[in-house]
Amino acid sequence: MKVWELGEFGLIDLIAELVGKSSRDEFIMGIGDDASVWRADSAVQIGTTDVLIQDVHFTLDIASWRDLGWKALAINISDIAAMGGKPGYALVSLGLPPETELDSVVELYRGLMEIAATYDVEVCGGNVSRAPVVIINLSLIGESSENILTRSAALPGDQIAVTGYLGQSAAGLRALRSGLQFDDRTIAFFREAHFRPFPRVAEGRILVENGVKAAIDLSDGLAADLTHVCKASNVGAYVWVDRLPIHPLVKAAFTEESSGLAISGGEDYELLFTAKGEVIDRIKELISIPVTVIGEIVSDKPGQVTLYDEQGKVIDWALGGWDHFRR
Amino acid sequence: MKVWELGEFGLIDLIAELVGKSSRDEFIMGIGDDASVWRADSAVQIGTTDVLIQDVHFTLDIASWRDLGWKALAINISDIAAMGGKPGYALVSLGLPPETELDSVVELYRGLMEIAATYDVEVCGGNVSRAPVVIINLSLIGESSENILTRSAALPGDQIAVTGYLGQSAAGLRALRSGLQFDDRTIAFFREAHFRPFPRVAEGRILVENGVKAAIDLSDGLAADLTHVCKASNVGAYVWVDRLPIHPLVKAAFTEESSGLAISGGEDYELLFTAKGEVIDRIKELISIPVTVIGEIVSDKPGQVTLYDEQGKVIDWALGGWDHFRR
Repeated sequence: MKVWELGEFGLIDLIAELVGKSSRDEFIMGIGDDASVWRADSAVQIGTTDVLIQDVHFTLDIASWRDLGWKALAINISDIAAMGGKPGYALVSLGLPPETELDSVVELYRGLMEIAATYDVEVCGGNVSRAPVVIINLSLIGESSENILTRSAALPGDQIAVTGYLGQSAAGLRALRSGLQFDDRTIAFFREAHFRPFPRVAEGRILVENGVKAAIDLSDGLAADLTHVCKASNVGAYVWVDRLPIHPLVKAAFTEESSGLAISGGEDYELLFTAKGEVIDRIKELISIPVTVIGEIVSDKPGQVTLYDEQGKVIDWALGGWDHFRR
Repeated sequence: MKVWELGEFGLIDLIAELVGKSSRDEFIMGIGDDASVWRADSAVQIGTTDVLIQDVHFTLDIASWRDLGWKALAINISDIAAMGGKPGYALVSLGLPPETELDSVVELYRGLMEIAATYDVEVCGGNVSRAPVVIINLSLIGESSENILTRSAALPGDQIAVTGYLGQSAAGLRALRSGLQFDDRTIAFFREAHFRPFPRVAEGRILVENGVKAAIDLSDGLAADLTHVCKASNVGAYVWVDRLPIHPLVKAAFTEESSGLAISGGEDYELLFTAKGEVIDRIKELISIPVTVIGEIVSDKPGQVTLYDEQGKVIDWALGGWDHFRR
């Protein structure tokens, strides 16, 4: 059955079923009225919005609808995590070609509800519309204490650390697109790395609780995102490329290119943060995933990231992060 | 200059300039970090999201970019108004073809900031992305007291009232598209009616303060939206078509069709509400725009709207409101 056969309001009813009833006390009203309503009892509200557009952010030949549901919410949760917040309420604005199969919408919402359950997010409303390609726009409202993580709080003398591994989402995309043969475990790893990021919410909150002030999530790629931090904080950054944490499966599959993927590949949705060395040592003990120091913040060359190889030589590196409009 | 020549991050800087600094005390952080942050001090938060997509919701031959900026926020403000809330914080997710002129983006944000200033909305963040067509997705967070207006609170015995005039947005679209000749005043009226709706925020709050419980904004068209109310409230509705408020300029331009436009034309962004007759009489005195009683809520035929002509005969009417997916 196609979306156009059910019609807009039938589709909304179906989505309401897929989302189900809320059991949350602060939640007052969701799908089925002009807007969604909830009670806010925290100090501070955090809002973000991000979109997945067909043939810009994904292609339907390698993405499954279920993965898209997961990822569309994940990229928004990651922004809340990068502020040190806790995600709360999601609004879904869905653009669909009328020929879209209803089963695809059901799968999309399965993926969405899976990650919503994992991160305790309420999918509380939205909008459906006809569109020339698939457009999945999510907005997410979260909350926090008064202390938040910002891009503009990095200080000279801070060390630069990242959670998890770098470059594996870009490696995953390349592997899935290349048609190269990998064993099943590697393919599953790459699919998960690219389509099922786990935003670092718990880790972001540990950062805040331990006095960290500066963080960003790695969506455009390490070099581009660290440049955002340097510009916002008016500081420079030195990065030791041989210290970048790269997963063994990425190293095995992309030996030569793996450093480049770690530097420029986006969409890892790990956290990059800066703090004094002793703070990072404490945090390493509190966070269960790897935390790796990859460089330091300096007052030199404000707004710029300088990359060093293992011999201490500067790597000539042209900005390779994702820019939506550059050719 | 084109968007691709400036690049994604140059575009974000430009948007930050166009939006400017906030002077609001509760506002903590806007464009330039992973997410936006503000303080919530009201009883209840209200969230909504809505989108304008090129060649679905508008065509660039008759819409100006400035009008699109106004309208994209207006349709979201109207949803908050229909809950009896006050709009607060807007997140803009913008999809643009790389060939888009920067001047167009500047005009878009002018329109957006115009309506934001009119309704005291903080444009506090968002996202830009490459897209095959222009996509303007807004999410809006508002607030309210504990009392809100819902679609599900209409009761048999209530009268049905609407603010303002009906059918003028659809009439406007038809006039602008038709190439028919109208005098300048009429053309200006139609352009404003279609592209510059004034959401009824103050009116929605007056409704709440005077004990009204049931309302919806007229976006899909009177018949379709009133059907939403009837379904959600499990009641029926009788509407007297000769009482529908139609602007003299619409009557003059579309004599025969004006009732049809008032019944099925969408995007008026007026409020429809139901309440006891004496409550509506009081509200008429408090609201400065016309408030017109157009029918009554009945227990008969739950979920259905029945239209009567001036002789009291049922008008055979097939659902003509906007459905995004129906052919």
